[in-house]
Amino acid sequence: MKTDIQIAQETKMELIKNVAARLDIQEDDLEFYGKYKAKFSDELWEKIKDRPDGKLVLVTAVNPTPAGEGKTTISVGLGEAMGVLNKKAVLALREPSLGPCFGIKGGAAGGGYAQLIPMEELNLHFTGDFHAITSANNLLAAMLDNHIHQGNALRIDTNQIVWKRCLDMNDRALRNIVVGLGAKADGVVREDHFVISVASEIMAILCLANDLNDLKEMLGRIIVAYNYDGEPVTAKDLKAVGSMAALLKDAIKPNMIQTLEHTPAIVHGGPFANIAHGCNSVRATKMALKMADIVITEAGFGADLGAEKFFDIKCRKAGLTPSAVVLVSTVKAMKYNGGVAKKDLPEKNMEALKKGIVNLEKHIENLQKYGVPIVVTLNKYVTDSEEELTYIKDFCESRGCEFALAEVWEHGGQGGVELANKVLNILENKESNFKVLYPDEYTLKQKIETISKEIYGADGVTYSAAAEKALARIEAMGMGNLPVCMAKNQYSLSDDPKKLGRPTGFTVNIREVYVSAGAGFVVAITGTIMTMPGLPKVPAAEAIDVDDDGNIVGLF
Amino acid sequence: MKTDIQIAQETKMELIKNVAARLDIQEDDLEFYGKYKAKFSDELWEKIKDRPDGKLVLVTAVNPTPAGEGKTTISVGLGEAMGVLNKKAVLALREPSLGPCFGIKGGAAGGGYAQLIPMEELNLHFTGDFHAITSANNLLAAMLDNHIHQGNALRIDTNQIVWKRCLDMNDRALRNIVVGLGAKADGVVREDHFVISVASEIMAILCLANDLNDLKEMLGRIIVAYNYDGEPVTAKDLKAVGSMAALLKDAIKPNMIQTLEHTPAIVHGGPFANIAHGCNSVRATKMALKMADIVITEAGFGADLGAEKFFDIKCRKAGLTPSAVVLVSTVKAMKYNGGVAKKDLPEKNMEALKKGIVNLEKHIENLQKYGVPIVVTLNKYVTDSEEELTYIKDFCESRGCEFALAEVWEHGGQGGVELANKVLNILENKESNFKVLYPDEYTLKQKIETISKEIYGADGVTYSAAAEKALARIEAMGMGNLPVCMAKNQYSLSDDPKKLGRPTGFTVNIREVYVSAGAGFVVAITGTIMTMPGLPKVPAAEAIDVDDDGNIVGLF
Repeated sequence: MKTDIQIAQETKMELIKNVAARLDIQEDDLEFYGKYKAKFSDELWEKIKDRPDGKLVLVTAVNPTPAGEGKTTISVGLGEAMGVLNKKAVLALREPSLGPCFGIKGGAAGGGYAQLIPMEELNLHFTGDFHAITSANNLLAAMLDNHIHQGNALRIDTNQIVWKRCLDMNDRALRNIVVGLGAKADGVVREDHFVISVASEIMAILCLANDLNDLKEMLGRIIVAYNYDGEPVTAKDLKAVGSMAALLKDAIKPNMIQTLEHTPAIVHGGPFANIAHGCNSVRATKMALKMADIVITEAGFGADLGAEKFFDIKCRKAGLTPSAVVLVSTVKAMKYNGGVAKKDLPEKNMEALKKGIVNLEKHIENLQKYGVPIVVTLNKYVTDSEEELTYIKDFCESRGCEFALAEVWEHGGQGGVELANKVLNILENKESNFKVLYPDEYTLKQKIETISKEIYGADGVTYSAAAEKALARIEAMGMGNLPVCMAKNQYSLSDDPKKLGRPTGFTVNIREVYVSAGAGFVVAITGTIMTMPGLPKVPAAEAIDVDDDGNIVGLF
Repeated sequence: MKTDIQIAQETKMELIKNVAARLDIQEDDLEFYGKYKAKFSDELWEKIKDRPDGKLVLVTAVNPTPAGEGKTTISVGLGEAMGVLNKKAVLALREPSLGPCFGIKGGAAGGGYAQLIPMEELNLHFTGDFHAITSANNLLAAMLDNHIHQGNALRIDTNQIVWKRCLDMNDRALRNIVVGLGAKADGVVREDHFVISVASEIMAILCLANDLNDLKEMLGRIIVAYNYDGEPVTAKDLKAVGSMAALLKDAIKPNMIQTLEHTPAIVHGGPFANIAHGCNSVRATKMALKMADIVITEAGFGADLGAEKFFDIKCRKAGLTPSAVVLVSTVKAMKYNGGVAKKDLPEKNMEALKKGIVNLEKHIENLQKYGVPIVVTLNKYVTDSEEELTYIKDFCESRGCEFALAEVWEHGGQGGVELANKVLNILENKESNFKVLYPDEYTLKQKIETISKEIYGADGVTYSAAAEKALARIEAMGMGNLPVCMAKNQYSLSDDPKKLGRPTGFTVNIREVYVSAGAGFVVAITGTIMTMPGLPKVPAAEAIDVDDDGNIVGLF
């Protein structure tokens, strides 16, 4: 069997200018990074903004399991299938991070015959967007520490610094550090932390900004610390906004590549789906809607986190109206939720399936609250039995959802035609009555409680003393009207990763709350949240190499 | 008066494919980064390697002074002047670092009418080479700490870890840090240090590697730590080589841009000139020699550091034979070396000039030891008096050097015609008898002493106990045949930055010695060497911005 990278490297790519031409984008509006990658020029938006919008389709999933659900693979395959059906479709997806690529997860460009290409470039430096974010993040940190070192005119309290350095790397040793050791010339000693670059607030800002001016406004509002009076100190106070914007000037431009079947793919931004909102950039999505009749996008983790934030943060802020949701699951995932161990998942087990399908049920109910029609799709494995597949199909259809099998990993676009037809049926025949879950006017606590009860199924919410204090401070700062970005483990609907299926009778515990004033949301943290992953015992990095012909091998 | 960035942005650039075409490089051999930047394909070398070599001209300088000598400006202007004279010339220069760009120094793309363009892109992310180096450096660090965390099968002594993390940033707070704090899952506690990315050994390797296979060999030899038995642990032992090479696969390809007058410029690599060798990449220089009749390159800091390492490390390793040296000075620099304060430098002062010119004299004598003909050039200021200029001219000519004034900052290529003609005269009429200063067979101490006495003018050398021990260990490891990379302050010929002019009666004190086994040199450190700069009271970053039209402003 061929590996993903073999399939990707064997595919003859189309020149990206030709891919763009099919969306009526002229060569002059592309900034080329080689022949197969391009950024959109700043001028392009003005040229296309009066075109009618296409329809927006969100791909989301049940809670992730160790078997992997293949959400990106389904997204890419659905895009390819639209091509098979001669529909004008474009993908609007996230960029991969280097950390997981060298860690346990590998790349994030889809799989099998549903991949984005050039996959190795996408998975490595791509067009440098994440490096630009890393640089901007760390410039702000350097200017912050320099300000303190040079006399601290802003009276920054070094015990209340909230800005963290970042690297696009899985590096647990940098989670908790002490900086500024050494002599007087070596800065001020304080505790510090590195996060992975995708967890930087700058990544979230880049993904929520409409344009460069918007970006600058948002960057300026970033709270880096509090002063001795407890007042926020911002990036603007540090005079760091212009330089950060200069570093991000190209990163804010969406990138275009293609799928194995030459479907256009706009791949831009990749905020963490825990402490940020986990969707590709607003700018990319809005441009995509002007370029095609159908735009397929994706949100991180399961629907309880990814879709909720897509709707309640991204769509709310950007004024987007999704027309359909594709909810990805697998037979294996349902059995895992029914208590089957990973090694036993290939075996038929109707009992476990019936037990575990409540996870899918809850996600269907949740998505229905947003008023958007749903297609449930199963990423099909050879081990899936007919009985299992039929059971899930009936289960979904009885709940008013469309249902389709997807075999895009094995068959590319052809394997996604059934799914694409179901999506097209919705787009042509079903109305979307999209609404957000809660109004801006709710207090932050009301918002947290609405999400916890309505989406997670909790009985209630408790708050730590620190969280109570932070909520009061944020409301007092006049930011109570912001949406809430819940930071919760992705494996369970509850805040306990071990509670699979559809947990009930639990309380959500809010441990910490802070405001991402630049991005424009309030982060509410349940449990411990990882913002800097570590490498596993045998990192994926050990297998990656460049062969004698200059080709990358071992990347998956 | 126009700023550098205004001049740069007002210039209509030529398409880089047309610039390359003038060097007989086809479009197929270019990998475009937009219309005005390109990397050379891996295949290009095979196509051009049998062409005859052009002649190599090194631009170096007297010891740097606070007034600035404008070495890059002269290099760029000399290239432009060759164009004025219809000579086929190409520049082979270093890439700027983001650290100084946001710090005190500003960009490094030349100045006035002798600049590289697009200057803002060159000064910011350019083609991502430095980001790739940063990523490769930090992947190795993460794999090192992960190896220890996961059981430390290689028995790495955490007190003998020599690999450091890096960022392309001036950030003094990261000079001395403690990592791995927190819980057991957060790694192993140890002292660590960040260096600026240009000080990473990977930068030096990238600049000394002939090709990707060579790069992999060198990366594998990097010593990251010593084990409990005192034996070296390498990047190869950590299985990090393939992934690092994958990250560096494009970074190793030289970049081409142009000057304001469309002279082709190959800008690639930028190792620190203190703990590394401070020259652009071997690969770029070798390719440049196949593309043009005249290749103009540059070495960091003054000739005591930059030229010495260019000759004794880069030329030795790469088998390069320079044909001429341009030694840059200013009237101001000579007066500064004669004891004049910075604010008084514009005033005519023959006495100080005569006193300070011994600095130039020593550099002339030093360069003559390498057997390469010299042109001394003065970067002319309006405040320079005829008497001062004539004195320096006579001084140089009486010592067998050519002499030329350069007014390239104000007049571009036209202002460099006199200098270009002197260089051409050497290339056509004077023979270069290039030889390195010391043979490989010398012991490390003999090498250090030869450089210290012959080049710096020291009476002798002393060694700290740690340095003695390290030298013995390196010789015992079989690496005594490597060249020495001296790490010395750049302001004085001695190891005391306050001793200006031509110091005598001093001893060089070697405080620390270590081997860069990957890059292939032994670093001998005198005094304290800065490998992570800090930001000044008012960082250049505060003035940089992006205007409403998306243009970068305030970068200098």
